Amino acid sequence: MGRVTERRKVLRIRDGVVSSRPDTLVAEEPLEIRLNGKPLAITMRTPGDDFALAAGFLVSEGVLGGQRDLRNIVYCAGATVDGSNTYNVVDVQTAPGLVIPDITLERNVYTTSSCGLCGKASLDAVRTTARWPIADTPPVRVAPELLASLPDRLRAAQRVFDRTGGLHAAALFTEEGELLDVREDVGRHNAVDKLVGRALQNGELPLSRAILLVSGRASFELAQKAVMAGIPVLAAVSAPSSLAVDLAAETGLTLVGFLRGSSMNVYAGEDRVALRAAAAQG
Amino acid sequence: MGRVTERRKVLRIRDGVVSSRPDTLVAEEPLEIRLNGKPLAITMRTPGDDFALAAGFLVSEGVLGGQRDLRNIVYCAGATVDGSNTYNVVDVQTAPGLVIPDITLERNVYTTSSCGLCGKASLDAVRTTARWPIADTPPVRVAPELLASLPDRLRAAQRVFDRTGGLHAAALFTEEGELLDVREDVGRHNAVDKLVGRALQNGELPLSRAILLVSGRASFELAQKAVMAGIPVLAAVSAPSSLAVDLAAETGLTLVGFLRGSSMNVYAGEDRVALRAAAAQG
Repeated sequence: MGRVTERRKVLRIRDGVVSSRPDTLVAEEPLEIRLNGKPLAITMRTPGDDFALAAGFLVSEGVLGGQRDLRNIVYCAGATVDGSNTYNVVDVQTAPGLVIPDITLERNVYTTSSCGLCGKASLDAVRTTARWPIADTPPVRVAPELLASLPDRLRAAQRVFDRTGGLHAAALFTEEGELLDVREDVGRHNAVDKLVGRALQNGELPLSRAILLVSGRASFELAQKAVMAGIPVLAAVSAPSSLAVDLAAETGLTLVGFLRGSSMNVYAGEDRVALRAAAAQG
Repeated sequence: MGRVTERRKVLRIRDGVVSSRPDTLVAEEPLEIRLNGKPLAITMRTPGDDFALAAGFLVSEGVLGGQRDLRNIVYCAGATVDGSNTYNVVDVQTAPGLVIPDITLERNVYTTSSCGLCGKASLDAVRTTARWPIADTPPVRVAPELLASLPDRLRAAQRVFDRTGGLHAAALFTEEGELLDVREDVGRHNAVDKLVGRALQNGELPLSRAILLVSGRASFELAQKAVMAGIPVLAAVSAPSSLAVDLAAETGLTLVGFLRGSSMNVYAGEDRVALRAAAAQG
């Protein structure tokens, strides 16, 4: 689409010196995701990989589980004043006979049935909709040294961040540390949805041997997306939230946070982190 | 509520040395916002200031414009299995006779009327729902040196970040640089909603003399929240998106990005930044 970045004039102030110059910004545009013609959600995203974004979003929501569930994804044509396509509306058409779960229009809705809404209800909702248990045969085992090397590999693979500073990134690695895919987006959830959706399109779900690395914090929703895609290891450069840790502990997801230099914190699923026994301290 | 942070056991790995210890995490819990008894939205947030969060959210959505529009905000009681209140559902009751705009259930929905969805439509939606034009009588003027001092003041006022590293922060300052209020939340939108909601509760809208500082990036939605609260200056520590810059340019909002050390970029509304004429370069 060529709309990943846009140029705007900026007034730059450096130590009191003012200059005017063009600046490269990360592009942000709304994307409406329709499911079989019906509007489902709108997300603010960086244009590009829109079909993957839509597919990945629907994996997280429990609608799609594999290539076979998908019939087609198309941009909706027309309907603007001048008849042109804005490429901001995609329709995901599911395979004939696919049973669509009763999902709501709100991305974060897990239960609205009562005033009993709580973190526990959110955890239960993910656990009951997850298609693949995060269980390993054979087990995935990752050395801390390998985990520590991933943020640098992610940075090296980020193409747009260096120009704009405005993008979240997410990447999939093999357990040997090989980069499988990297996506950047103005929204952190979108970057992960694009990875998962691309994997679905390639027939690679569940991602049961993959490590997911995110450039920022690990929220509940990012942990949810990992679980829904069958990913066993989620590593974040920054802090996790309490509910992300609880979801990881309950589903068996390995959750690593504050992955910086040779340091990291393992919040759940530590059996997948290959520690040298000699180094362990109480 | 005392639920801003939670403790979890963590496996800490530092240069190959492993230790197990308790760690403080930022709390994340779902909050359902109801409007006159009807479920409207769910957001994942850090508990605390929930009434302000709900009120601020409804300012952004164009429902509330001032104290007079609000009758009451309450936690919904009961309805859990054990009859206890989770404090995760709030009902905002509006003043009798208040006309509620037709808002959708999805936070990011600006228009779903056609395939013509685009950034322009999002800008138009904000411009037509904004209650207060961002016009200054007398004009707000801020020196770059003052802007440069704000991130340090924000950091000094952040109480939870230092313990968890997991929080976004937003603060309101006077044009003289005095800190008016600071809020922290696992969600960056929530931190701003809490600021704006508290201002509404205190009868301080529009915030026509205030500077809003956010700890991260400036997205379209954050610029929207500034505009909807009548805030003339939005400053961000990190990058803005293209659509945030476009919204600022169109509404008259001053948008400052990459506010670091003595440097910053001014993307729109530069008339409010008091430059020394001698320092200006073409």
